[in-house]
Amino acid sequence: MSIEEQVTLYEVGLRDGLQNEPAFVPTDDKLVLARMLADAGLTRIELTSFVSPRWIPQLADHERVAHDAERRPGVQYSALVPNRRGLDGARRAHLDEVAIFLSATETHTQRNINKSISEALAVLSEVSACAIAAGIRVRGYISVVFGCPYEGAVATARVHALVRSLLDMGVFEVSLGDTIGVGNPRQVKNLVRSLLTEVSPDRLALHLHDTRGTALANVVSGLDEGIRTFDTSFGGLGGCPYAPGAAGNLATEDLVYLLDGMGCPCSVDLDRLILASLHVTELIGRSLPSKVLQAELARRQRDLSRRAKANQTTST
Amino acid sequence: MSIEEQVTLYEVGLRDGLQNEPAFVPTDDKLVLARMLADAGLTRIELTSFVSPRWIPQLADHERVAHDAERRPGVQYSALVPNRRGLDGARRAHLDEVAIFLSATETHTQRNINKSISEALAVLSEVSACAIAAGIRVRGYISVVFGCPYEGAVATARVHALVRSLLDMGVFEVSLGDTIGVGNPRQVKNLVRSLLTEVSPDRLALHLHDTRGTALANVVSGLDEGIRTFDTSFGGLGGCPYAPGAAGNLATEDLVYLLDGMGCPCSVDLDRLILASLHVTELIGRSLPSKVLQAELARRQRDLSRRAKANQTTST
Repeated sequence: MSIEEQVTLYEVGLRDGLQNEPAFVPTDDKLVLARMLADAGLTRIELTSFVSPRWIPQLADHERVAHDAERRPGVQYSALVPNRRGLDGARRAHLDEVAIFLSATETHTQRNINKSISEALAVLSEVSACAIAAGIRVRGYISVVFGCPYEGAVATARVHALVRSLLDMGVFEVSLGDTIGVGNPRQVKNLVRSLLTEVSPDRLALHLHDTRGTALANVVSGLDEGIRTFDTSFGGLGGCPYAPGAAGNLATEDLVYLLDGMGCPCSVDLDRLILASLHVTELIGRSLPSKVLQAELARRQRDLSRRAKANQTTST
Repeated sequence: MSIEEQVTLYEVGLRDGLQNEPAFVPTDDKLVLARMLADAGLTRIELTSFVSPRWIPQLADHERVAHDAERRPGVQYSALVPNRRGLDGARRAHLDEVAIFLSATETHTQRNINKSISEALAVLSEVSACAIAAGIRVRGYISVVFGCPYEGAVATARVHALVRSLLDMGVFEVSLGDTIGVGNPRQVKNLVRSLLTEVSPDRLALHLHDTRGTALANVVSGLDEGIRTFDTSFGGLGGCPYAPGAAGNLATEDLVYLLDGMGCPCSVDLDRLILASLHVTELIGRSLPSKVLQAELARRQRDLSRRAKANQTTST
């Protein structure tokens, strides 16, 4: 693993995280969080999703969030767009990056967006063309590449074909999603190695979920193969909120801690990041699954108790 | 990574797990748990610790647990012994394996057992000699090899010297402990690779903590270097009980899930293991940090809700 090369984190907490929270976080708070994430050194931030509020009421304020989020030099802001209408919203918000998505299996695509894969590709192709014509760069997500809740195992050839389709549309980067967190380092190695026979590593990202604790092991496998962009969510926001402690998105903190320890350069400051996670914890009223965050909170708690004890001793 | 070679899990939950639980689990329940762990296919089980009940009241019943735990063909039972007195207890309990321990740093050894490293080595040497003379095999633990809460970084040369000392005493296996969960895959690779210039891989084990989510990534690094024995705790028992969700020992479930996914042969049956973890959850009255366990419980909950809804629909 070459550790000299900078690792880039693509922060999905405000979109993939908040859309899975039962509570609606007020727009102004979302704007504060976006600022805190940029303050922490994140250089790529997905702000929201231009989907119908009927489907995701938590992100009903997508127009305002995308429009009003303070732009910071060196930070790329993006939003998910499912279709032309979503893209129009992103344009009105003056975003210069959008993300499109589909799943690696027919059943997951059908259940998620009520289309076949080929119908989905047709829509995405139109959206990409319009975006690119308007000077907006397009990221692509492929979900369930390491396993589908409906179809089980996913053939490498299928992922290959979809990656190729997306790149052919002019997508600049494809994010490979382990949506249900079933992948393992061996699968990551095999899939990435196979894709890299055709695609440059800077065109790929990994979107790993920590549902079964394997996300960091999968990251290391991806790093070993040359991947340098990983999607993460601050605090691990977006874990299943109905199963306390259960994890979804890989926590930004956990990856930053690992990279710091291994001496891999990355732009994020852990302490400042934790401020953002503590803030969102208060907003949503529940603890978050990031282990580094929990370890840090436990440490602070111990420090406080120790100091309280010391004060008590002094005062008696 | 050669995946053909069997991976062995050394189960520490009944000792390293329960000693960190505030509640005392009744002796008969511990015996049931030991049986359930063997039923799940675990072949190495550390039952308890022969330390003074003044220090660890949770394991005050060590004599009975070690003596009464049902022996199963093909399963190796062990217990931690800090000194000659502990060894005598283990002998009375007819154990044929014991584990001795010290830390890689002076400060941690001093705080943990109130001895310098050289004083500790003298005691361990005597204990090993007596054990081996009595036909009992001896495992050795070295704590904080990847970082010490008091001294910070730990030099590889220091770990080397301690591994050599333990092997010279006749210890058959040395378990390298990331006691506070600060290690990363790069450190694991460097330390293991360096040790393997002198020591055969079957004389080493890794005892990893998941405090910051890095344990499985570290396991994969160890597997890559040829390590085939890993210490784990069922359910992740032994996480800091005062910080809900915080993790300590790597959960046996999480490692078994990873190994199963990667096609690494291991003797443990995940479903049966989960039975043991669910049982201990009831005994200690709190949820456990294993992510695989949590994902499985969330899945079962969803299934139940779905079935309840289906029944409702049918009955109206």
